[in-house]
Amino acid sequence: MSGAQIIDGKQVAQQVRGRVAEEVAALKRDHGVTPGLTVVLVGENPASQVYVRNKSRQTEAAGMVSTMHKLPAETSEADLLALVADLNEDPSVHGILVQLPLPEQIDETRVIEAISPAKDVDGFHPENVGRVATGAGGIAPCTPLGCVILAKTVQPDLTGMEAVIVGRSNIVGKPLAQLLLKENCTVTIAHSRTRDLPEVTRRADLLLAAVGRAEMVRGDWVKPGATVIDVGINRLEPQPGEEKGRLVGDVAFEEAREVASAITPVPGGVGPMTIACLLANTVNAARAINGLEPVAIGA
Amino acid sequence: MSGAQIIDGKQVAQQVRGRVAEEVAALKRDHGVTPGLTVVLVGENPASQVYVRNKSRQTEAAGMVSTMHKLPAETSEADLLALVADLNEDPSVHGILVQLPLPEQIDETRVIEAISPAKDVDGFHPENVGRVATGAGGIAPCTPLGCVILAKTVQPDLTGMEAVIVGRSNIVGKPLAQLLLKENCTVTIAHSRTRDLPEVTRRADLLLAAVGRAEMVRGDWVKPGATVIDVGINRLEPQPGEEKGRLVGDVAFEEAREVASAITPVPGGVGPMTIACLLANTVNAARAINGLEPVAIGA
Repeated sequence: MSGAQIIDGKQVAQQVRGRVAEEVAALKRDHGVTPGLTVVLVGENPASQVYVRNKSRQTEAAGMVSTMHKLPAETSEADLLALVADLNEDPSVHGILVQLPLPEQIDETRVIEAISPAKDVDGFHPENVGRVATGAGGIAPCTPLGCVILAKTVQPDLTGMEAVIVGRSNIVGKPLAQLLLKENCTVTIAHSRTRDLPEVTRRADLLLAAVGRAEMVRGDWVKPGATVIDVGINRLEPQPGEEKGRLVGDVAFEEAREVASAITPVPGGVGPMTIACLLANTVNAARAINGLEPVAIGA
Repeated sequence: MSGAQIIDGKQVAQQVRGRVAEEVAALKRDHGVTPGLTVVLVGENPASQVYVRNKSRQTEAAGMVSTMHKLPAETSEADLLALVADLNEDPSVHGILVQLPLPEQIDETRVIEAISPAKDVDGFHPENVGRVATGAGGIAPCTPLGCVILAKTVQPDLTGMEAVIVGRSNIVGKPLAQLLLKENCTVTIAHSRTRDLPEVTRRADLLLAAVGRAEMVRGDWVKPGATVIDVGINRLEPQPGEEKGRLVGDVAFEEAREVASAITPVPGGVGPMTIACLLANTVNAARAINGLEPVAIGA
């Protein structure tokens, strides 16, 4: 029965954070640099507040300086851009993360493009998107980085694998395609306009679901023996007796684990990797700003 | 027999240049702006010289101003960067094209990144690569643009088609994937490390070959009824009685035309589209610099 290995994202994330902490210590010791990550939070989105608290705690646990700017929901775009400009100039800040979504009076694209690409640890600035695509350095976004690290825990060399990504978002699907091309996968990007999606996903040795639809990928969409990475986090409607609905991924986990050889759970799969990779990006941003080569931080 | 429609790139390129000329005339008439394209040629590469002459001629034929800077092969990187900086500031210049390859004392990446993204009509600057990837505007590279225009002459709506790109170069394969995703294709990128390449290409409703290997894609690699776009231009060894070897694509044309429903020839397919799309990019660069929306220039 249930043959698939469950990929433990919590454990892998902990390993990544351990590696980050080592690199932070080395940067302090050898170069007198303490990496600093600043988070900017506008408004009172409760999910964002939880997430931002976790970031701060993990940033400090890795030995970095964590700072936070909380701005009221009615902050103007001009004021936010002025803060970003100050942070760009601040030598103690190596990573700037403006928590999305932003209130509607603020143009997200304009804010993202105002962040210095060297400090854009989310990897959303067009210059970083371009560099990651061409292989000319750049900072890659955290969630796709986490997916690749998790896949490599079961398949250290992804060369020649058929990777199918479901979802073409700018935050996950598209950058994931670039990272998997770099790993020498044959990469297919499928999406809402794909004809016969199950047929396409059944080709995948490595199947990555990032669409944001609860349990859309069924067991019979999965090739026997495939590795399945589930990026989705969806909350179901509460069932009788439940206070909150269950959290599920984009993959029907119980079905898929019967077919796959390895699979990430939700929660506890890709989710914990995102912050860990953010910390890794911050260390490497601090290194680059100080003229040092990046270090590879896998698991 | 030979059922495939031959896609006439020369004719389509002529239509594109006609549309460009109309837009140039409208820009002059309505806004007093004459688009200007500057080509920088370093050294004496004979293929580059032919290509650059064609560019100049076609630029002028479309009603634009064509200028050229010919620099000696021993030009220093600093001197080339200084020229690029001047051209970035020159209000009569809307497009800057530094002809590649550059002599080895010059770092191509550094030169490409020195060109103002607004004038980077080759679409190679990381900021343009990133914007094209995320859909936030940007200038797309000319050859991939030409491929999409040619494909749409036979299939005006590419939505849901299985597109397979063979080749993952920064100049063709990767940007082509972004453009085809935008056209709602399911996109696969295959390459030298792909396992069983013929099996992958046989899935393609739209097959695009951009590897630079003479006649690598055989007839039985093509799905019956597919549209085949051949980006390769390879010169074969001269046969007895030939002075120069024949030009062929990456696709074995005579075999593939028996299977495909439409196919581009080499020469006379994708080749002529590249300069036509360069002119289209220059018009749109001139429009953007003057605060105007881009115009769609298909066939």
